[in-house]
Amino acid sequence: MKSSPEKVNLVSVNLHHMETRRKFLTKSLLTLGAATMGTKSLFATEDNLAKSGKLRIQQNDVILFQGDSITDAGRNRENLKPNDTGAFGHGYAMMAAATLLNKYADKNIQVYNRGISGNRVPDLIKRWDVDALQLRPNILSILIGVNDFWRTVDRGAQNTPQQYKQQYQQLLDTTLKQLPEVKLIIGEPFGVRNVKHVTDAWYPTFTDYQEAAKEIAKEYNATFLPFQSVFDKAASRGSGGYWTTDGVHTSMAGANLMAEAWLNLIK
Amino acid sequence: MKSSPEKVNLVSVNLHHMETRRKFLTKSLLTLGAATMGTKSLFATEDNLAKSGKLRIQQNDVILFQGDSITDAGRNRENLKPNDTGAFGHGYAMMAAATLLNKYADKNIQVYNRGISGNRVPDLIKRWDVDALQLRPNILSILIGVNDFWRTVDRGAQNTPQQYKQQYQQLLDTTLKQLPEVKLIIGEPFGVRNVKHVTDAWYPTFTDYQEAAKEIAKEYNATFLPFQSVFDKAASRGSGGYWTTDGVHTSMAGANLMAEAWLNLIK
Repeated sequence: MKSSPEKVNLVSVNLHHMETRRKFLTKSLLTLGAATMGTKSLFATEDNLAKSGKLRIQQNDVILFQGDSITDAGRNRENLKPNDTGAFGHGYAMMAAATLLNKYADKNIQVYNRGISGNRVPDLIKRWDVDALQLRPNILSILIGVNDFWRTVDRGAQNTPQQYKQQYQQLLDTTLKQLPEVKLIIGEPFGVRNVKHVTDAWYPTFTDYQEAAKEIAKEYNATFLPFQSVFDKAASRGSGGYWTTDGVHTSMAGANLMAEAWLNLIK
Repeated sequence: MKSSPEKVNLVSVNLHHMETRRKFLTKSLLTLGAATMGTKSLFATEDNLAKSGKLRIQQNDVILFQGDSITDAGRNRENLKPNDTGAFGHGYAMMAAATLLNKYADKNIQVYNRGISGNRVPDLIKRWDVDALQLRPNILSILIGVNDFWRTVDRGAQNTPQQYKQQYQQLLDTTLKQLPEVKLIIGEPFGVRNVKHVTDAWYPTFTDYQEAAKEIAKEYNATFLPFQSVFDKAASRGSGGYWTTDGVHTSMAGANLMAEAWLNLIK
């Protein structure tokens, strides 16, 4: 059963500036009596959110990595199993998942990778019901945006940071409607400047996409993972070509750098 | 230029029981005047050995993972590059290498994986010149032995723990002749009992192979990595089927468990 993204404008875009979309959505659902639908009160949602601290892995957690090629990283897309080597590729998602599966072996967690190379936000929206909502993640980590921008540079696609933001909001509205308790991690799209694809032509527009992702994370009480800062900081230890193969995709070192940053969000 | 393993009986098997083979070999080479052949004194060898402490990663280190399928882990054997995602497969060697490359980004290290599925010690001996010695590793990590035993169970191969030990000694004698300063890590062959292949028929003979690996590590002043203990201890956190897919090969969790243990050997 596929949900229709365009029907999901449940949440008004005119939010009070001090109120997050998530709070608004929670209240809307409460008003609708949705609080009685689950086994837990929706008030628990707030307790589960990562506001400033780290995320806690809990018994039976389902953890989903979503995104583009950086998340996909050559995974076998025919293999849909959680926790399975063949389903994970060789990127940060695999490295983070492997560490989680080791460290939290007693928690019976299920970790999925559903990144798909080339994806932009509209691609995620199209496949979101099957590739995210139906998996019912407790922790949903999304890294999307570099292609949303990049295709405007290399293939003449039409897009703006504002459109990217609106589409991302639509995706997350859909998500929170179905999974009001999900803990969100939003990764900052990144580029390592002056390595192959990431030329001066990317700037300053690309930074507006990065800013949009950051704003969205705040708006949805998501944990923001500032990958650009992670790579910028790593520049003191290795060249851009050491961490990425082309400015966008990671080397082994870069994938580990990202996984390390991701795992640092976890208690 | 291939070295001929059968010609390598440089070191007498009749060592004084308090004297390691490495010391003996060093002395033999000194006697032969070999100390003047390298840029560093062979006496430095002793300083670089890990006796009880951890190994230190140094500038320009070459680190080589050698072994069987557990090390190979589906790597692309056509890709011989160091530090390259495609060359590493998805096992503990990849996970350990990725962490090393991140953590020691400023050290200009080169990490190789040359594990080959199905290998036993005689297979390593045959390809050792090209796949180990010519790479001139500073740190050489070897995990070999499960197939040496396993083939006696599933394919009627003839082998004994004593033969395994003698062949392993031959391999290391060859190694130390060419690379007297190499730091050795010897992984204990392991099996997770009662998971698929690892039946009661493995015991007690398999433990004699494990004991041989341990004795060899001591004899050659290698750092011994007691993988069996690592998996035994992990049993309190997850089932055997959680850590391995078949008692021998690792899941993502198991590969990470091994990588973690490997990395714990490093400062």
